[in-house]
Amino acid sequence: MNREADVVIVGAGLAGLMAAQEIVRAGREVIVLEARDRVGGRVFSQEIAPDVVVDLGGQWLGPTQDRAYALVKALGLELFPTYQEGEHVVFHQGRLKRYQGAIPNIGLRALLDIGRAQKRLDTMAAQVSLHAPWDSPHAREWDSITLEQWAAKTMSTHAGKRGVSLFSEAVFAAEPNEFSLLHTLFYIHSGTSFDSLISTQGGAQQDRFAQGAQSLAQGLSEPLGDRLCLNAPVRKIEQTNDRAHVHTDSGAFTGKCAIVAIPPTLAGRIDYSPPMPPDRDQLTQSLPHGSVIKCMSLYAEPFWRERGLSGMATSDTGPVRLIYDNSPANGTPGILLSFLEGEAARTCGRMSQEERRQAVIDCSVRYLGERARHVEAFFELNWSAEPWTRGCYGAHFPTGVWTQFGHALRAPVGRIHWAGTETATRWMGYMEGALESGIRAAQEVLEKIS
Amino acid sequence: MNREADVVIVGAGLAGLMAAQEIVRAGREVIVLEARDRVGGRVFSQEIAPDVVVDLGGQWLGPTQDRAYALVKALGLELFPTYQEGEHVVFHQGRLKRYQGAIPNIGLRALLDIGRAQKRLDTMAAQVSLHAPWDSPHAREWDSITLEQWAAKTMSTHAGKRGVSLFSEAVFAAEPNEFSLLHTLFYIHSGTSFDSLISTQGGAQQDRFAQGAQSLAQGLSEPLGDRLCLNAPVRKIEQTNDRAHVHTDSGAFTGKCAIVAIPPTLAGRIDYSPPMPPDRDQLTQSLPHGSVIKCMSLYAEPFWRERGLSGMATSDTGPVRLIYDNSPANGTPGILLSFLEGEAARTCGRMSQEERRQAVIDCSVRYLGERARHVEAFFELNWSAEPWTRGCYGAHFPTGVWTQFGHALRAPVGRIHWAGTETATRWMGYMEGALESGIRAAQEVLEKIS
Repeated sequence: MNREADVVIVGAGLAGLMAAQEIVRAGREVIVLEARDRVGGRVFSQEIAPDVVVDLGGQWLGPTQDRAYALVKALGLELFPTYQEGEHVVFHQGRLKRYQGAIPNIGLRALLDIGRAQKRLDTMAAQVSLHAPWDSPHAREWDSITLEQWAAKTMSTHAGKRGVSLFSEAVFAAEPNEFSLLHTLFYIHSGTSFDSLISTQGGAQQDRFAQGAQSLAQGLSEPLGDRLCLNAPVRKIEQTNDRAHVHTDSGAFTGKCAIVAIPPTLAGRIDYSPPMPPDRDQLTQSLPHGSVIKCMSLYAEPFWRERGLSGMATSDTGPVRLIYDNSPANGTPGILLSFLEGEAARTCGRMSQEERRQAVIDCSVRYLGERARHVEAFFELNWSAEPWTRGCYGAHFPTGVWTQFGHALRAPVGRIHWAGTETATRWMGYMEGALESGIRAAQEVLEKIS
Repeated sequence: MNREADVVIVGAGLAGLMAAQEIVRAGREVIVLEARDRVGGRVFSQEIAPDVVVDLGGQWLGPTQDRAYALVKALGLELFPTYQEGEHVVFHQGRLKRYQGAIPNIGLRALLDIGRAQKRLDTMAAQVSLHAPWDSPHAREWDSITLEQWAAKTMSTHAGKRGVSLFSEAVFAAEPNEFSLLHTLFYIHSGTSFDSLISTQGGAQQDRFAQGAQSLAQGLSEPLGDRLCLNAPVRKIEQTNDRAHVHTDSGAFTGKCAIVAIPPTLAGRIDYSPPMPPDRDQLTQSLPHGSVIKCMSLYAEPFWRERGLSGMATSDTGPVRLIYDNSPANGTPGILLSFLEGEAARTCGRMSQEERRQAVIDCSVRYLGERARHVEAFFELNWSAEPWTRGCYGAHFPTGVWTQFGHALRAPVGRIHWAGTETATRWMGYMEGALESGIRAAQEVLEKIS
């Protein structure tokens, strides 16, 4: 393998791979270093039975994620819509109800309350700058309270506030007291709207990958050949006058620039020489990840469908508060995707594997009936336990962080540039954001070395 | 140097050194590994002229810091009281006022407002458990809002709220919107009371070290001889069945246990094998440090004293909002200690050295008169730029962190135990807390290997 290139990229997630593609297309030499034995980062597909691929990581695409759809097309990948037919169920105040469409029947007052909150959040979100949230009109004020505080102040129903906490867990995998209102608003704007973040049809959960979302990463990595180096965790990046030397367990690699395309909290664990400036280091100290355990229960068939159910369930009671039908396109086997998110992921993460499996299946039974007990196989991934991710879906910004340190998020430090979905302006936290960030970082370094 | 011992300690700050002393006293073998070329960590003294020692790091002791005073006595070190004679000044709403005693004259309404807030905080603080803040009666509620939010809700004057932000900057080196009310209350309880944290006489700023506070660390480290290894940053800790292998740039060291006695955000940068469990890793992702640049201006003499001033100044206007007379015991030369804290440290940290020096001196002139312009020498240390500290005074806990991850703060992981002032119950963030944590961690490992 060549040990010198124009650009050395740290991380073979979608951000790093997209950057690599852009740099190769510009006729420049690239090396991509990846800590894991696989590409894809937070996107990870597994064949759990012949021809049955499940996504244990990111799995959905939705409207306005244009770069991702374009890449799907370019790579000749196949998508299919998330199963949505029939009625959904909501478990609310100890009772199970069926409903159709987007809005569960949890009482008129709560629905009006949530509707108003959503409208307010969307209106405020539109005022938050995607490029410099810290410079937005009410930045300091909105960065000083959490989403939970905002809901406590402006919402009138308990059920409505529980709805906001479900939103927080489903979208951030964190509780609404863990990040600022400004971050919530930025994220909503970044992902188009509140509705767009939470919706299946017409939203971020609309489409799935027939061969698993990791096929996107595999498609990007294939042309790299031996310019991609797996099992090469980066320990240190040294900058000299005109070069960046990237040290791994398998030796050093030198570029005119480096792109660090991993989450800030992991980027902060690399040893830099010279050391990072204060703002950059303190930014990486301040961006914890959410917590999610993605659980998949397999059944001989999607039994809920014959009962006229979509398999989608939401709940005001944990630990599982969100279930999707995650069966393959042909409907066999039946697969339920149960999310343990935020506090539930942390609590259940401390259980034994068997206890956790039981807790998850108990929830499926509660929402979808006794047949849910007859699980043929069970798969789970606790993303907080993954040494090269350490939590999903991404970083959230606690109060004060955007306004104190946000300006350091994308600012290059010498020959080191930053990518990764946390650095995106559109669809931060999603595959689309990762792709945007890779393209932007590639443009930065191409300009610098031209 | 011996490469095997009963216990390998990471970090030769006060916590690590205190742990080492306890282990040696118990007749066990110890190795202490330190990344820097010196001991002391956040305690760092420099001889800036013959017989003139200044503390660029932690420097004060106060009542109830019993372990620290006992150690001072055991090592035969000399203390002297922080200079407090004469009148203090306060710069308030564009005007400079002199005052005596603890309470600046900023108007009766503001004083009452602050007094009430202080009393409320003390009362609530007493309800927060020092060993398990997350289990306190109102933990979830108090962990969901920031100190700033609490002040906005309960205080009635602008000047009073500015007082709370000065408290936040002086005690946490962070803005009051960066950490939770629960953390504030824990910290107040941990340091006895609000008053105790902010006071000179009778409080945490009462006594200074004649030879600099680092003499405490030096006194502890001396008996270690070659059991202390400097310039040895720890990169990896590997646990096997019955040993912990600690890897540094100068080779590996093996113990039956390891004590990691560095701040959580730095402990999180070590590569652990097997990897840390989710809660521990996410805790270390969530504990950013405050920001402080400690500045010292030298004058031929302490000119303010002859004008009947103590040299102490507080201000509602930055960047310097807090000044102390930091002259040696004999009063020569005159030294003003100016703090850039929280947001001011970040903003001024981006200036050139000369601009920053000018901004600091301009503040001294504003508070203490024209003679403050005639600085003979100027010293500063930006603790956020120190690769082996990355911010002072210590870690603060953003909203949600104590209740979600607090339980992982001291919980040993296999053969790895945790020390450092952030793990203390009493005087967290202070030298005293570091000593407590070292003793506690030493007891844990001695019990385990006995």
